[in-house]
Amino acid sequence: MTGFSSPCGACKFLRRRCVNGCVFAPHFCHEQGAAHFAAIHKVFGASNASKLLTSLPATDRREAAVTISYEAQARQHDPVYGCVAHIFALQQQVVNLQAQLESLKAQEPVQGYTNTCSVSSPEEDSMKAKVMACQT
Amino acid sequence: MTGFSSPCGACKFLRRRCVNGCVFAPHFCHEQGAAHFAAIHKVFGASNASKLLTSLPATDRREAAVTISYEAQARQHDPVYGCVAHIFALQQQVVNLQAQLESLKAQEPVQGYTNTCSVSSPEEDSMKAKVMACQT
Repeated sequence: MTGFSSPCGACKFLRRRCVNGCVFAPHFCHEQGAAHFAAIHKVFGASNASKLLTSLPATDRREAAVTISYEAQARQHDPVYGCVAHIFALQQQVVNLQAQLESLKAQEPVQGYTNTCSVSSPEEDSMKAKVMACQT
Repeated sequence: MTGFSSPCGACKFLRRRCVNGCVFAPHFCHEQGAAHFAAIHKVFGASNASKLLTSLPATDRREAAVTISYEAQARQHDPVYGCVAHIFALQQQVVNLQAQLESLKAQEPVQGYTNTCSVSSPEEDSMKAKVMACQT
């Protein structure tokens, strides 16, 4: 319950009584919560979302509610790629940034720059490894 | 059907008859498909996954099947953040790469480098804008 006997946003959307201890209540307020929960209900299903939150320690539920809400809204916005479109965009952004750093390193011999102008190769290699590890 | 009357991986997992025109059949093979579909069934639910694929043009369903499979597996691996953890990691990687480029630009006056050693400010600003736009 969110107080004053008003149902939480999830129970308001589901048109059901919001009982004490409702797993959604702390994360979906009466007003905006219903709209946010609508996407979760359509993409994951209320039952699956409830099972997920219930399976987590109370301290982790807020973050989980935020991330499934984000994933659900992204899937509604882009039914084919969902939030994976965001991952692809960020991976391309990382590749572009690394290309700029590689380009600067390649210019060093020509420009006769010292290491003060170069980027850290170990760090760059580490980033490359992260990008490779990020490939879905 | 996947041929030879064997059910697709989704129908095999759901232990149901795989009919001609099964929306899952083209994307979940009899062998590995069942394991991949298990995560989708647990996270999204078979019905929600079926509704999503059915709502898309046939040409988009393969990509959608791949992305929901990825999201489902990521959520099983990390129940709190799911694939959003991947987004956070990539965003941090972008910030770190941009910091390296900023550092190189800051060194220019000291080193007396010409623009041949500088990175493109407009591109960098554009990337910053993308990162901001990517904030969840």
